[in-house]
Amino acid sequence: MKAIAVKTDESRPQLIDVPVPEPKEGEALLRTLRVGIDGTDHEVIRGNHGGFPEDDGYQILGHEAVAVVEDSNGTALEEGQLVVPTVRRPPAGTETNRYFERGEPDMAPEGHYVERGIVGAHGYMSEFFTSKPEFLVNVPDSFAKFGFLVEPVSNSEKAFEHAYASRSAFTWEPESAVVLGNGPLGLLTLAMLETSTSPFDRNYCLGRRDRPDPTVDIIERLGGTYVDSRDTPVSEIAAVHEPMDFVYEATGYAKHAFETVDALAPNGVGALLGIPSDWEFEVDGGSLHRNLVLENKALFGSVNSNYEQYEAAIDRLKEFPEWFVDEFITGVYSPENAEAAFEDGDGVIKTVVEFDTR
Amino acid sequence: MKAIAVKTDESRPQLIDVPVPEPKEGEALLRTLRVGIDGTDHEVIRGNHGGFPEDDGYQILGHEAVAVVEDSNGTALEEGQLVVPTVRRPPAGTETNRYFERGEPDMAPEGHYVERGIVGAHGYMSEFFTSKPEFLVNVPDSFAKFGFLVEPVSNSEKAFEHAYASRSAFTWEPESAVVLGNGPLGLLTLAMLETSTSPFDRNYCLGRRDRPDPTVDIIERLGGTYVDSRDTPVSEIAAVHEPMDFVYEATGYAKHAFETVDALAPNGVGALLGIPSDWEFEVDGGSLHRNLVLENKALFGSVNSNYEQYEAAIDRLKEFPEWFVDEFITGVYSPENAEAAFEDGDGVIKTVVEFDTR
Repeated sequence: MKAIAVKTDESRPQLIDVPVPEPKEGEALLRTLRVGIDGTDHEVIRGNHGGFPEDDGYQILGHEAVAVVEDSNGTALEEGQLVVPTVRRPPAGTETNRYFERGEPDMAPEGHYVERGIVGAHGYMSEFFTSKPEFLVNVPDSFAKFGFLVEPVSNSEKAFEHAYASRSAFTWEPESAVVLGNGPLGLLTLAMLETSTSPFDRNYCLGRRDRPDPTVDIIERLGGTYVDSRDTPVSEIAAVHEPMDFVYEATGYAKHAFETVDALAPNGVGALLGIPSDWEFEVDGGSLHRNLVLENKALFGSVNSNYEQYEAAIDRLKEFPEWFVDEFITGVYSPENAEAAFEDGDGVIKTVVEFDTR
Repeated sequence: MKAIAVKTDESRPQLIDVPVPEPKEGEALLRTLRVGIDGTDHEVIRGNHGGFPEDDGYQILGHEAVAVVEDSNGTALEEGQLVVPTVRRPPAGTETNRYFERGEPDMAPEGHYVERGIVGAHGYMSEFFTSKPEFLVNVPDSFAKFGFLVEPVSNSEKAFEHAYASRSAFTWEPESAVVLGNGPLGLLTLAMLETSTSPFDRNYCLGRRDRPDPTVDIIERLGGTYVDSRDTPVSEIAAVHEPMDFVYEATGYAKHAFETVDALAPNGVGALLGIPSDWEFEVDGGSLHRNLVLENKALFGSVNSNYEQYEAAIDRLKEFPEWFVDEFITGVYSPENAEAAFEDGDGVIKTVVEFDTR
């Protein structure tokens, strides 16, 4: 079957031919429809984020997928059901551990999980893949074209949940939010903040693009305010716009983690989602520390998501405006043209590799 | 009456003579027993933390008090009742605001409160003071000698509550904690962690003192492990001892806020309580940011406390070992000798000014 992989010591994705995987007992065979590409895939390709599965000289990419149950193989799954697979699995050679047993694989520390398509396990960017039913979330038939967005949206559902939890010891009535980053995750998160069930009244999204630009168009069409970081650095957002009850960092730019404290309103919370490399720089650590304390501010890091957050993401995606997916998915590529799907360029927002259609 | 105050443009506490305050309608008159001294008082004296009450050329110090209802003045208070006053009040000229109405004055941002003895209002370091009943918490008669500890303990109750809240979106079963700082607040917090109702099994306390030292004795008698920061910097605590599920910073040393991230176990949370001055220094911001994200770590700042946290502090203090208060309170001074109560020295842990006894 066709698969998109990166080989050891190479740093470009390529089409390879591998055998269709055989589902083991208790596993089903899934037929892949679409697989989205995000920043993590680029990090896997650069080799600075993940690790390859044992004994294989390649890593099949892809962790944002939507697929169909092809062969239930004796499991309770219904053949033809549309599903989205979760990402984390117990490490090779283990069946489970307490994080998976609790339904909280997202909270497992390093060594207690592998991640399909990212570290230690093959991903979903192939015509077929296998999975235990417990790692598959049913999605409605209407999700065939964009169900792969459930994974990134679920990561933000987790971040929102942790943000609310961190402010649950007092009355928190947030109104303003800024998303740092107008990449795919940033735009999805802005769309989440703009749904009718979101309590946020005024949402901003930071980028560094000249108009006309399709991400700026999406920000404004969603109802958000575009903040050009070249005019308004994060540390000045509070003064130029307003102090933010919630800051969502999706840039991976380490200085933003610290500037988030400046952008926050008293009692606000910042969620950090980016994964930067080492970088030493100077901060006014005294001011940051004091500001966190005297204004009861909070910061937290968040990675991955759990099953319930996938289900929340499905409900959230149903609330997105109809035009959003069409504007957001800027490229659909066949496996043969997958290399082009990984290229950045003017007007590119979200690209996907399509293996099959419903 | 006698009061201990600092005058404008001076930077030492002194005994002054001021009229006994007249309780307004709805206020009671309180007779002060003891008032504790902490780091905030030293900051008020240095003039870099608080502001003086309007129109007065002096600030009466003291925010950790235990007192007796002297004249209920028509309020529902019972004369002779032992009470501890809270610290925050609505700003001068205002009756209340939403933070006070919610019972959450601790979450009020700057401008929405004054703090008795700290900023904008006189403290309790005088023979008498006045207060509305809603800002007084009843304490048992047995608290006459140490009831002033309810205030600092309540600040840690708040920090604990916010720490739990911030980890409430998943199963958090903390076992290990380190308190950064063996000052009075640090030792009180260690004692809280060591009470039988605390879930923490292994607690550490950081200081920089040579043995023999009374704070080290208290740490060990409580059951904690003393960590000498000259041998084991905060950034190495995880490797030398163990990663910490909870870090409580009570040093006001800004680098500790950042090193807290290194000391934390995955999914851990750090509470920052210190109030440092501006200080620029270099950090590996990329590593810090990445570490927060990939290990789901959280940091938050916490200041002040609310009425319920005062009540929790009362219950907590009942759990302290009997010997603790005697070892902890190292000096009791008369108003005439109050200046000495503000001096640091070998063997000094917590000093109090005693205006009266029960």
